[in-house]
Amino acid sequence: MRALRLHEIGGPQHLRIDEVAVPPITESEALVRIRAAALNHRDLFITQGLYPKIALPVTLGSDGAGEVARLGALVADLAVGDEVVIDPMLEWGDNPRVWDAAEATILGMPHAGTFAEYAAVPIDNVYRKPPPLSMDEAAAIPLAGLTAYRAVFTRGALQPGETVLITGVGGGVQTFVLLFAKHIGAQAIVTSSSDEKLKRARALGADLAINYATNPDWPKLLRATAPIDLIVDSSGGETLRKSLDAIRPGGRIVVYGGTNGDATIKMFPLFWKHVAILGTSMGSPQDFAAMLELFNQGLRPAVDRVFAFGDAPAAFDRLAAAHQFGKVVLRVD
Amino acid sequence: MRALRLHEIGGPQHLRIDEVAVPPITESEALVRIRAAALNHRDLFITQGLYPKIALPVTLGSDGAGEVARLGALVADLAVGDEVVIDPMLEWGDNPRVWDAAEATILGMPHAGTFAEYAAVPIDNVYRKPPPLSMDEAAAIPLAGLTAYRAVFTRGALQPGETVLITGVGGGVQTFVLLFAKHIGAQAIVTSSSDEKLKRARALGADLAINYATNPDWPKLLRATAPIDLIVDSSGGETLRKSLDAIRPGGRIVVYGGTNGDATIKMFPLFWKHVAILGTSMGSPQDFAAMLELFNQGLRPAVDRVFAFGDAPAAFDRLAAAHQFGKVVLRVD
Repeated sequence: MRALRLHEIGGPQHLRIDEVAVPPITESEALVRIRAAALNHRDLFITQGLYPKIALPVTLGSDGAGEVARLGALVADLAVGDEVVIDPMLEWGDNPRVWDAAEATILGMPHAGTFAEYAAVPIDNVYRKPPPLSMDEAAAIPLAGLTAYRAVFTRGALQPGETVLITGVGGGVQTFVLLFAKHIGAQAIVTSSSDEKLKRARALGADLAINYATNPDWPKLLRATAPIDLIVDSSGGETLRKSLDAIRPGGRIVVYGGTNGDATIKMFPLFWKHVAILGTSMGSPQDFAAMLELFNQGLRPAVDRVFAFGDAPAAFDRLAAAHQFGKVVLRVD
Repeated sequence: MRALRLHEIGGPQHLRIDEVAVPPITESEALVRIRAAALNHRDLFITQGLYPKIALPVTLGSDGAGEVARLGALVADLAVGDEVVIDPMLEWGDNPRVWDAAEATILGMPHAGTFAEYAAVPIDNVYRKPPPLSMDEAAAIPLAGLTAYRAVFTRGALQPGETVLITGVGGGVQTFVLLFAKHIGAQAIVTSSSDEKLKRARALGADLAINYATNPDWPKLLRATAPIDLIVDSSGGETLRKSLDAIRPGGRIVVYGGTNGDATIKMFPLFWKHVAILGTSMGSPQDFAAMLELFNQGLRPAVDRVFAFGDAPAAFDRLAAAHQFGKVVLRVD
């Protein structure tokens, strides 16, 4: 089979389509014929060496959808040929509140990932594809949708009628945050430095779109506009510092990344406003199942562009340039 | 009546015992003959001008216990002569999750406080004194006990068998955190730069006491010792930064102050360990009632020293020097 493998650190140019053996499966695994996969920043970070414990060569890819090709054991609710989507969170553990930090890993390194014709994954991580979705759409969901679901609902406890601020919209997770918020009837405010992304966010339902580059005092602007109940952020740094100014008393700030580095935060607004700063990463099996249910109800993900498997370098270029809005998909014919 | 009033900013030397009129009460207030009051850092900060919107002259004091002298209206569960303790949180509002930031104030500025023979307070803020406690002990509870109760239980959700780290033990609130944690059967670890305070904390039940001055890498020490489920902190700054290293995956850090200033925090441990940093200040009426219930069950507060009303300057000196362990009480004969 063909597999997109990373051979050395230094960027996506070190990815190569290799001819390799179809992976064997254990009794607890399923073999999935991948029809579509999607890119995440995690894949890019691994090619750049910005990830702990990288083992090479490796087939990258956390997001995948396809059909069951083989099952390690008979299970009640799954048969060969079923259309499925894969939960990339491996070995979360038994506690829905936090993963088992010693055991948890993410599909796509060290475990061979979805950028291949076949992937061997634990049967427990294989879920029925939401029927309304195409394979491309289903492949766009897993990692980003799971992360967003946990951020918005399990950690952020967003309620209908509340207002969420989505900092730096455009990437995979933040786009799902926007979709989920609008789906349950919350107000959504987005920020970006790109007017093009703000326009696309408005088209997806954002109630207010702010260019943070031309409005550096956006916390003041927001305090005058609407009480912000929840902020979902993956940048940290200056954005997290300002988020403490923007949030309403009793509000929550959920953080799932830190691309802007360390944050220097003031203590007074933290305790005086009874703010909660809540870290999150990936999600539990319960989160994944609840997230898929939203798509069973008819919600559609935002797909930025679909690339052929052989055009993987161009797909990575698009992600690296941060030009995408929604998910970048690789079709694995 | 006699009242200890602040006449100008610049420190506790500007406090003076004045002869003033007994305050009138409205239909929604009770007049309480104060028998004992207790000092909080808030009182000291106000004398130093380190508090917003200071109005002078003012009778300070948030903590008080005594007897009902007069009632603005007949109420079912309170009569003249009843021994009571006062909830210093005025106008919290209807939402148990967060105070009404526009209305909430704390007894003792601008509302005349408890450092006087009589205080006029809302009837809703008057609670029966827990019978096992003396007036001195009851006066030691309100502000610090309320803050600690909300930090430990309402925000921190401490469970029996869990481990809490109490940074900088010795002050009023942290001493209550220690008492509450041991009362429900949690493990308590304390830090201080004073071996004398560590010794007193051990006598109150602390399972482990660490001198952070001689063990600057206490997070590493703790990671090797016990998983820390909850950290309660009022310093911020370097302590909060280190707390993120010390906390276990899924742990909570509750912050109710920031004496060490802004904190520069790393994003990776925040999201990777699914940590929650939870700000809190004072507490709701529900928190106050639940807190008193612990003392009805027989718990006793830690009283550092009892001063005569005329010795208020010495009481303030003791607080300012940070030599106290537990509460500094003023007896109002």
